[in-house]
Amino acid sequence: MIGKLLTTRLGSFPLLCQTSDSHMKVPLMTHAARIGVLTVSDRASRGEYEDLGGPAICEYLTETLTSPWTPEYRIVSDDRHLIAQELQRMADDLGCCLVVTTGGTGPAVRDVTPEATEDVCEKMMPGFGELMRKVSLEKVPTAILSRQTAGIRGKTLIVNLPGQPKAIRECLGAVMPAIPYCIDLLEGPRLETDPAKCTGFRPKQK
Amino acid sequence: MIGKLLTTRLGSFPLLCQTSDSHMKVPLMTHAARIGVLTVSDRASRGEYEDLGGPAICEYLTETLTSPWTPEYRIVSDDRHLIAQELQRMADDLGCCLVVTTGGTGPAVRDVTPEATEDVCEKMMPGFGELMRKVSLEKVPTAILSRQTAGIRGKTLIVNLPGQPKAIRECLGAVMPAIPYCIDLLEGPRLETDPAKCTGFRPKQK
Amino acid sequence: MIGKLLTTRLGSFPLLCQTSDSHMKVPLMTHAARIGVLTVSDRASRGEYEDLGGPAICEYLTETLTSPWTPEYRIVSDDRHLIAQELQRMADDLGCCLVVTTGGTGPAVRDVTPEATEDVCEKMMPGFGELMRKVSLEKVPTAILSRQTAGIRGKTLIVNLPGQPKAIRECLGAVMPAIPYCIDLLEGPRLETDPAKCTGFRPKQK
Repeated sequence: MIGKLLTTRLGSFPLLCQTSDSHMKVPLMTHAARIGVLTVSDRASRGEYEDLGGPAICEYLTETLTSPWTPEYRIVSDDRHLIAQELQRMADDLGCCLVVTTGGTGPAVRDVTPEATEDVCEKMMPGFGELMRKVSLEKVPTAILSRQTAGIRGKTLIVNLPGQPKAIRECLGAVMPAIPYCIDLLEGPRLETDPAKCTGFRPKQK
Repeated sequence: MIGKLLTTRLGSFPLLCQTSDSHMKVPLMTHAARIGVLTVSDRASRGEYEDLGGPAICEYLTETLTSPWTPEYRIVSDDRHLIAQELQRMADDLGCCLVVTTGGTGPAVRDVTPEATEDVCEKMMPGFGELMRKVSLEKVPTAILSRQTAGIRGKTLIVNLPGQPKAIRECLGAVMPAIPYCIDLLEGPRLETDPAKCTGFRPKQK
Repeated sequence: MIGKLLTTRLGSFPLLCQTSDSHMKVPLMTHAARIGVLTVSDRASRGEYEDLGGPAICEYLTETLTSPWTPEYRIVSDDRHLIAQELQRMADDLGCCLVVTTGGTGPAVRDVTPEATEDVCEKMMPGFGELMRKVSLEKVPTAILSRQTAGIRGKTLIVNLPGQPKAIRECLGAVMPAIPYCIDLLEGPRLETDPAKCTGFRPKQK
């Protein structure tokens, strides 16, 4: 399913998607921005559960981004060390300008995605979590249970999203307008968005 | 006064309440959820000041919870180590599923409840503080001075509330709809709320 | 320009303002509150860029405060250690009741003002950043990229503001109503504000 979604946008670059715990094999495109999509779920990582979060993120990005990009997709279990390791790999080795996680942001004992994110980030971006909780709170009072955060590792912006596909769309939609300019400030690739879907905002440069 | 309030709800279980620094002696009820109520105040702990915060929390919970519960009530001084110790005791030794504190969240030098809470929690829940400040901000611009937070220790949710009874009611009322589901996720007892007072919200289970 | 602005309010106390990296030489006024104004900018500290942030803060405070105050103004580069050192000096050596910073709160690699602020503070005040981002978000979606925070060091309140003069006014205007009471709680000087500009709010004392 992800393969289909992505080929829509990526045109002649067919994507091989594996829903097991291994990342998508994508042909390297010189000017394409790499974007990590990390699903954090014990059940999905064991194949007991179809990952819906990762595809929902890819679908949203495919609809919204008009500049070329390639996904780096992987599923890991709710293990703080493994999540941190994967975030590090996507940022440092794969050179992703953006990594979006889904899952593991709640209060349960296995929910450790925000901690793993903090482990690998040099600076935290509290405004992302605040805005996403505010937007979710308009839908459900349990939005305050989401501990999702965002931060910067080197030149990579890492953003946590909730696990539910519907909540992913709401949360990613809320913060997306600020992401292209954030990537600019991190000296990453220029991301362009479809104004009909999302107005990527860039203040006038000083 | 607390004794009276609590017997209203607890019916045949008379509660002995001591307003000095010692916890309430409550008969153990097998299925009752234990809820810690911790007043943090130098003056109240020395008996110079009648604690109004603890009774206000008990009153709110008595009105709102329809499932059986027993309070574990104690007053401590504004001492980071003592607060942390008491939170730990309520969570680990008494098995409270929820501990609610009042007082010590401001900017003054003796206000250290949020730090003590962080000291004992494995994970923080920033959404609680954000929402409580937002709600208080509609009443007073000084709401931003409240540093109240929430977090998880083991299977216990710890929530800081301000010191003023009126603000307690506003803040606890704002976050209460999310608490029963949070306790579910922590595998604690099932809390039920009076829909006329507060709609405890539980998303459909996956 | 700062000199001019400040003399308007300070009347017979002419201020010598140096826009290079050295603090303003101000005659000591016995009852005047000292307020630190710290511009954080690589370019402004090298004199390549005229500092607009510091003067914007002074202009706002001059318009708003009716009680006597003297500024302690300095420009430093985006260096975490230097910023921390200067915050410390303004708090500990100069006895400022309030220090307001401008600049260095974004996601770029050189933006480290919030980290330097945390380095020197004993307690953080999350409500300030939350409210300032909320207010800025009504103007620009990139407001969530601002990592500005506030905290307490000893008897000093430290507040980070963004770098743009227009955003400074919006953000400082949003939190100013809570600042005089915060300084009261820190046992600092009594700040009075012009009710036509800002209603400094003081809850009734217990």
